[in-house]
Amino acid sequence: MGTINVTKEELIKLVTKIVSDELTQNDELRIPIGVSGRHVHLDRKDMDILFGQGSELTTLKPVKQPGQFAAEQVVTIKGPKGELKKVRVLGPLRSKTQVEISVADGFKLGVKAPIRESGCLEGTPGIELIGPAGSVKKDNGVIVASRHIHMTPDLAEKYGLKDRQIVNVEIGSDNNRGLIFKNVLMRVTDTSALEMHIDQEEANAAGVSNGDFAKIVE
Amino acid sequence: MGTINVTKEELIKLVTKIVSDELTQNDELRIPIGVSGRHVHLDRKDMDILFGQGSELTTLKPVKQPGQFAAEQVVTIKGPKGELKKVRVLGPLRSKTQVEISVADGFKLGVKAPIRESGCLEGTPGIELIGPAGSVKKDNGVIVASRHIHMTPDLAEKYGLKDRQIVNVEIGSDNNRGLIFKNVLMRVTDTSALEMHIDQEEANAAGVSNGDFAKIVE
Repeated sequence: MGTINVTKEELIKLVTKIVSDELTQNDELRIPIGVSGRHVHLDRKDMDILFGQGSELTTLKPVKQPGQFAAEQVVTIKGPKGELKKVRVLGPLRSKTQVEISVADGFKLGVKAPIRESGCLEGTPGIELIGPAGSVKKDNGVIVASRHIHMTPDLAEKYGLKDRQIVNVEIGSDNNRGLIFKNVLMRVTDTSALEMHIDQEEANAAGVSNGDFAKIVE
Repeated sequence: MGTINVTKEELIKLVTKIVSDELTQNDELRIPIGVSGRHVHLDRKDMDILFGQGSELTTLKPVKQPGQFAAEQVVTIKGPKGELKKVRVLGPLRSKTQVEISVADGFKLGVKAPIRESGCLEGTPGIELIGPAGSVKKDNGVIVASRHIHMTPDLAEKYGLKDRQIVNVEIGSDNNRGLIFKNVLMRVTDTSALEMHIDQEEANAAGVSNGDFAKIVE
């Protein structure tokens, strides 16, 4: 084998190109799948009640979307029929507390949560949150998150996609549970990492997990 | 309002036609969805062990497929990581014991069950079954059932479908989780009731439940 002389900058460019080509093979957009488990976003007021006045979330591990993280903090969520313990809080704090569960979780809790985009909480059911320092009964905020794709504006432009566009996405095409999700929402923002968010039931129905890829289809 | 004179036979024909038209609106085949929860089929030998020598399954309620029923009997299934109690037995007895779970159940039990057609148990993992009279450790038999459609030969012929054909099926098209399941197996037999079987996670991913309808698409 011969030796190839490259500068560090050239090497970085080369590796970046290889990784980029791998992600967009033959210029086909391959979207990494991120499977969301049940989780909670807290506002400042509920953080104070559940974990103590002035308490702060601490990072267990970062998630793929820049600036966001799985916190070390967990809470119990309690509905009229049952409760779920050790539900992970996702940071940072938000302007409104929001609880994201699966349809199956809703059965266990006795809460009929609608399929909703994150942040659209009007008319959603409430639930009780229990933390180490106290508990709070929310009037609303429980949703089953609607599946969506995070993408940056440059990539969206390259593939002719727009923020808030509804697309169809093929997923699991190389396994025997392959399917096409309709009604997938595009969310194009500068701070996005390319990722399709689905919940655990959607992932299981499609036979996929974190690290698999999705593809936008007609 | 006037009075219409019809015989009982004419009335039956009329109602049958209305129901049939409703099911196949504009000649479009509407397939009722049947959502399967986790369940167990037992063979004679395991029935004896779990419920006592010569014991028989008793009917809790019939299911849609002719001759089959949810039994009053339940068992515990126990894997290396956890157990699930009160798992319903489906009757009648079969030639081989088979345990049908969801992907999520597999995580709880610590059993990685493959997506399989009912009856295809070679190479599948085993599990422990516990009944009121005894317990048995199976070497195999745990599957996640692959989605499929039951249909009679006359209806299959009318719609140009064949036994064991693989079709695509649109489901939940009138809700915001609508999707197209690929790799759906046709099972055409004389004793079928028209029905598409999916599991609870597939139903939740599609936002549908028992009584909703599926449609075969290109």
